[in-house]
Amino acid sequence: MNILIVHAHPEPQSFCSAMKDLAVDTLQQGGHSVQVSDLYAMNWNPVASAADFQQRNNPDYLVYALEQRHAHGQQALAADIAAELEKLLWADLVILNFPLFWCSVPAILKGWIDRVLVSGVCYGGLRFYDRGGLAGKRALLSFTLGGQSHMFADEEAVHGDWEPMLRPLQRGTLAYTGLSVLPPFAACHVPYISQQAREEILEQYSDYLQRLDEVEPLVFPSLANFDRHLHPLRNAQEVPA
Amino acid sequence: MNILIVHAHPEPQSFCSAMKDLAVDTLQQGGHSVQVSDLYAMNWNPVASAADFQQRNNPDYLVYALEQRHAHGQQALAADIAAELEKLLWADLVILNFPLFWCSVPAILKGWIDRVLVSGVCYGGLRFYDRGGLAGKRALLSFTLGGQSHMFADEEAVHGDWEPMLRPLQRGTLAYTGLSVLPPFAACHVPYISQQAREEILEQYSDYLQRLDEVEPLVFPSLANFDRHLHPLRNAQEVPA
Repeated sequence: MNILIVHAHPEPQSFCSAMKDLAVDTLQQGGHSVQVSDLYAMNWNPVASAADFQQRNNPDYLVYALEQRHAHGQQALAADIAAELEKLLWADLVILNFPLFWCSVPAILKGWIDRVLVSGVCYGGLRFYDRGGLAGKRALLSFTLGGQSHMFADEEAVHGDWEPMLRPLQRGTLAYTGLSVLPPFAACHVPYISQQAREEILEQYSDYLQRLDEVEPLVFPSLANFDRHLHPLRNAQEVPA
Repeated sequence: MNILIVHAHPEPQSFCSAMKDLAVDTLQQGGHSVQVSDLYAMNWNPVASAADFQQRNNPDYLVYALEQRHAHGQQALAADIAAELEKLLWADLVILNFPLFWCSVPAILKGWIDRVLVSGVCYGGLRFYDRGGLAGKRALLSFTLGGQSHMFADEEAVHGDWEPMLRPLQRGTLAYTGLSVLPPFAACHVPYISQQAREEILEQYSDYLQRLDEVEPLVFPSLANFDRHLHPLRNAQEVPA
């Protein structure tokens, strides 16, 4: 497999960075090819803007997704975006590795999502979910947090269940582009635990990475169950999208 | 009321920017004081990093939230963060106004959240949800999107219900800091609708802004229902956090 790890932590000595390093080692030892986009080290620009297009379809009014499509067709995407998109299209598996900031990715990684998941390539029109442009590839969130797992255990937990809290990322982003989303790996309570507990988490993560082929992806909607206006199909006579 | 609008759209002529302008006019006409943080116009830096602290508690290992606390205590936060934090503390109501990018805020606005919602001021330890540092203030998401409202109508809809899709923002971010979260204003299908339909949305938005005092905030957990380890209290004998 070709594997892209997109890593976003401001401290190279962090546990989150150790997870990234462990993933590189584990996956390379498993015979896979690995590339890492270390966004802080790359000084990645996260701000989607007109500067992302060397040529514009409409220079007077920016509709970002339309300019993405146009620029991709004209090979006029900014060089940093084009380089990341090439890695993404090369990859069979994409791992987003990050500290949970405000129940989501850090801004620098949000900006990788905003700029690299290019309209017309990764999605567009009715090409999303199981018809998304990245269908056939897999993805995985691996993240660290200060909170404990019981705080996200179910809807009665103080922060509710993981699924809704991760929905914009796992469903609204990864699954939307057609990626098969594997269950996330959450390293909980990291700032407060012993060195031994941290080493146990690293072992669990390594084990998980070694058995990815046995792991069932999460389930998301299929467009076969919606009409072309994306209303749910209520009976078998209705025509899917 | 003092009102802060944090606005994040790369196109000043956009409908989303028109919503921001309308909000300024409507709220000022209602007798409120309004400040706008137009993040694109400000060239806001969204990347949380060691450069955010003029003085470090631990210069050898960055734990971002701990350095936030330390730097706030020492008045050593970066000037751009300090200025935004001052606006936030001035405000009785905060409106985040943005185009929905990947079912979330654009990276430039995520970076406002990451950097300005400073630990030790906005939250910390058991100071979150109804005990958060911003308790007593209100907040509101107002956003534009290409999708239609039926696509988020309920859990059977193609993207599921709005509540889980907005959970990291409304619950994991705004409510977490103690803000009372008013129901969001979503301007749907914006790129595809008539000028008249857009004007109707602007009227609805103006109406909504004029009756904010009648609007019930959304309901989020109270820490009174959790013990000090943040397990849900199962019976009346247990001691709240």
